[in-house]
Amino acid sequence: MTAPTEARLLEIVFPDHTNHLGTLFGGQALAWMDKAAFVVATRYARRTVVTAKSDQVDFRAPVRQGQLVELVARIVGVGNSSMQVEVDLIAEDLLTGDACLATRGRFVMIALDGHGKPTKVQGLGPRAQSPESDSAARPTGLGAA
Amino acid sequence: MTAPTEARLLEIVFPDHTNHLGTLFGGQALAWMDKAAFVVATRYARRTVVTAKSDQVDFRAPVRQGQLVELVARIVGVGNSSMQVEVDLIAEDLLTGDACLATRGRFVMIALDGHGKPTKVQGLGPRAQSPESDSAARPTGLGAA
Amino acid sequence: MTAPTEARLLEIVFPDHTNHLGTLFGGQALAWMDKAAFVVATRYARRTVVTAKSDQVDFRAPVRQGQLVELVARIVGVGNSSMQVEVDLIAEDLLTGDACLATRGRFVMIALDGHGKPTKVQGLGPRAQSPESDSAARPTGLGAA
Amino acid sequence: MTAPTEARLLEIVFPDHTNHLGTLFGGQALAWMDKAAFVVATRYARRTVVTAKSDQVDFRAPVRQGQLVELVARIVGVGNSSMQVEVDLIAEDLLTGDACLATRGRFVMIALDGHGKPTKVQGLGPRAQSPESDSAARPTGLGAA
Amino acid sequence: MTAPTEARLLEIVFPDHTNHLGTLFGGQALAWMDKAAFVVATRYARRTVVTAKSDQVDFRAPVRQGQLVELVARIVGVGNSSMQVEVDLIAEDLLTGDACLATRGRFVMIALDGHGKPTKVQGLGPRAQSPESDSAARPTGLGAA
Amino acid sequence: MTAPTEARLLEIVFPDHTNHLGTLFGGQALAWMDKAAFVVATRYARRTVVTAKSDQVDFRAPVRQGQLVELVARIVGVGNSSMQVEVDLIAEDLLTGDACLATRGRFVMIALDGHGKPTKVQGLGPRAQSPESDSAARPTGLGAA
Repeated sequence: MTAPTEARLLEIVFPDHTNHLGTLFGGQALAWMDKAAFVVATRYARRTVVTAKSDQVDFRAPVRQGQLVELVARIVGVGNSSMQVEVDLIAEDLLTGDACLATRGRFVMIALDGHGKPTKVQGLGPRAQSPESDSAARPTGLGAA
Repeated sequence: MTAPTEARLLEIVFPDHTNHLGTLFGGQALAWMDKAAFVVATRYARRTVVTAKSDQVDFRAPVRQGQLVELVARIVGVGNSSMQVEVDLIAEDLLTGDACLATRGRFVMIALDGHGKPTKVQGLGPRAQSPESDSAARPTGLGAA
Repeated sequence: MTAPTEARLLEIVFPDHTNHLGTLFGGQALAWMDKAAFVVATRYARRTVVTAKSDQVDFRAPVRQGQLVELVARIVGVGNSSMQVEVDLIAEDLLTGDACLATRGRFVMIALDGHGKPTKVQGLGPRAQSPESDSAARPTGLGAA
Repeated sequence: MTAPTEARLLEIVFPDHTNHLGTLFGGQALAWMDKAAFVVATRYARRTVVTAKSDQVDFRAPVRQGQLVELVARIVGVGNSSMQVEVDLIAEDLLTGDACLATRGRFVMIALDGHGKPTKVQGLGPRAQSPESDSAARPTGLGAA
Repeated sequence: MTAPTEARLLEIVFPDHTNHLGTLFGGQALAWMDKAAFVVATRYARRTVVTAKSDQVDFRAPVRQGQLVELVARIVGVGNSSMQVEVDLIAEDLLTGDACLATRGRFVMIALDGHGKPTKVQGLGPRAQSPESDSAARPTGLGAA
Repeated sequence: MTAPTEARLLEIVFPDHTNHLGTLFGGQALAWMDKAAFVVATRYARRTVVTAKSDQVDFRAPVRQGQLVELVARIVGVGNSSMQVEVDLIAEDLLTGDACLATRGRFVMIALDGHGKPTKVQGLGPRAQSPESDSAARPTGLGAA
């Protein structure tokens, strides 16, 4: 009965995703993290959702070509029509299995109705609700997808 | 003699960049903004640069399929080995020419030497220097590309 | 201590993945299913793995543009250097949440050592072992990746 | 007057198509083989066609980055609304010209009318008809594209 | 008041854009040059524009993987419904900053109205007008996009 | 014993290849034509080949999304280290089978040895030789790939 609050995506780092040093471009990481946030928020709200903002995203460790990237997106707060999503990007060496949290970030997603207007989403259960979610509920723009 | 502090990129919004409503995915916008930050920071430092963090990025207006996207990246602060880059994403209707600032964000890029270690970059001229650049000069991780 | 025997991947169906009727190309489905088999087999064996064969793959229901595709890959048998992987492709409507098993198939993956030669993989625990896995253990070619 | 029963496609193996050993992913090979089957079946039936199943596909030899891939798809049997297509994937070294049959597989394609319903296709001439084509004429699902 | 007559695009050369020698495919260069011509001509005419022909394009120097490509497209002549666009492709080494004109070509673009018919475009100001533009104003076909 | 002098490639026109009117971008057509020229010249010379120039390419008829594109590349002249390649781009409606020559162009390709220097290629047989091939044999630059 309860909507899912977590989504996991897997990607492989190819040569076209990397720079001179053979490490993943930050922009590709951001695109994958937003995709994970999009999936979990869409499944939670069952609405078209768009990104209202990405909060500070820290790149802690480089990710190398050939590694596997697992994206774990969790809904950590819900406002009126907004959802706060925390996304971890975990890099895993395919041959050794060593994994580390390479990047973490937070995205605010907005649910839209069929006319493209913000629409109400159901509240998060008591355990998952975080105190700062209310402020996130007041985005000032309509955002990108 | 002075290094360039601005870069402009142009992209076209194709169907594969858009959601159910035909508007640009936030993740694609972030990837393009990071690419613009990468280009201007690399040209400024003439080093391999990686993204250390993306600060708050606000999506103010939706961008539609078929529109032209102009990315304007400016170096607004320089620390020891870091560069603060502000990126505007301007959406332009190809037929009417109407343009608006759809998204604005800030990225911190780090210059690396040939061994992947942070390396010093030249200071920004007096006019462009912004007061908060010092704090941006202390990233805690090595970042993604 | 035990190696993982299941992997899940999520993909979104874009216009470039579809035919005249707006439904997913079979070849794109096969590419995603093989990718899921590659990930679970690599994680199980911690070796480079290549595809030795794809057994009969049945396309039961069409998948439409804009739907979410979840790929569930499970190791169902292990031979000397081979792993049998069953992959389900589940199509999910993003707005309604309706999901159905659209395609199911089986892939045989081979673990290779650093010289590209087949190499032994650990046996599957008693519960997961299936009787027909022995015959799958004798591929006649080296396969593609 | 007679419909074409063979199609040939050429592709180049790029870095993003390959694994750790620099050899072609099986899933990419499957996607190209299905594309070749789609083209020959569409030209034969002059209908939208979808893939009903892929029968056993054997990967006999690895294909390396930089090689040319030629796909040869032949209609080898025709049922009521179905077409059996055999596809050879031939890898060719661009500089030496050495070529080998790397992969062979069989696909069953279904012709659909404008409403997405299976529709009759013309019979194959006496020479090309193969005895097992009748059983292939009874797919149980509508398939993917 | 005056329409823009120059557009600049930036691209990065990735492994999938290069041949055995690690240098840029001519076809990728042509695609980027046409994109630059498309953007400047669309902005000049504020119409859908299509390519009527590409005149001789000379590849003067190879472009290597990892280099930055800057495309500079200028409208150098205007006919009734046609625009002549000269495009320079400048390759720049990201680390040294060395840049050279690698390729130069000329494209004729046609402005179309909403029905796909050629439509009049405004004349170019006296300074930019070049003598040979009149002959370019008589394309015989409707062209591709 | 004789080297092949013709290559045929097939492509499908997807939404990301098209403009506002749903017709193929000229730049995509040029990229496919150069790819066909690259394949036939590489097979003829069994060397790495690069594009020295593209001569006038005329876009005669628009190509629409969903159509099949067949590229026919023929070697029509051979100089010392250069090959003249004529490429036809034929658009075919998948459902009706109607086909037309949409674009025709000529490319000059250069064979390179392992050090990237122009190298001699075998002469074309008497029938295929065209009178103007000698002048094409004196490109002034090394060209792109």
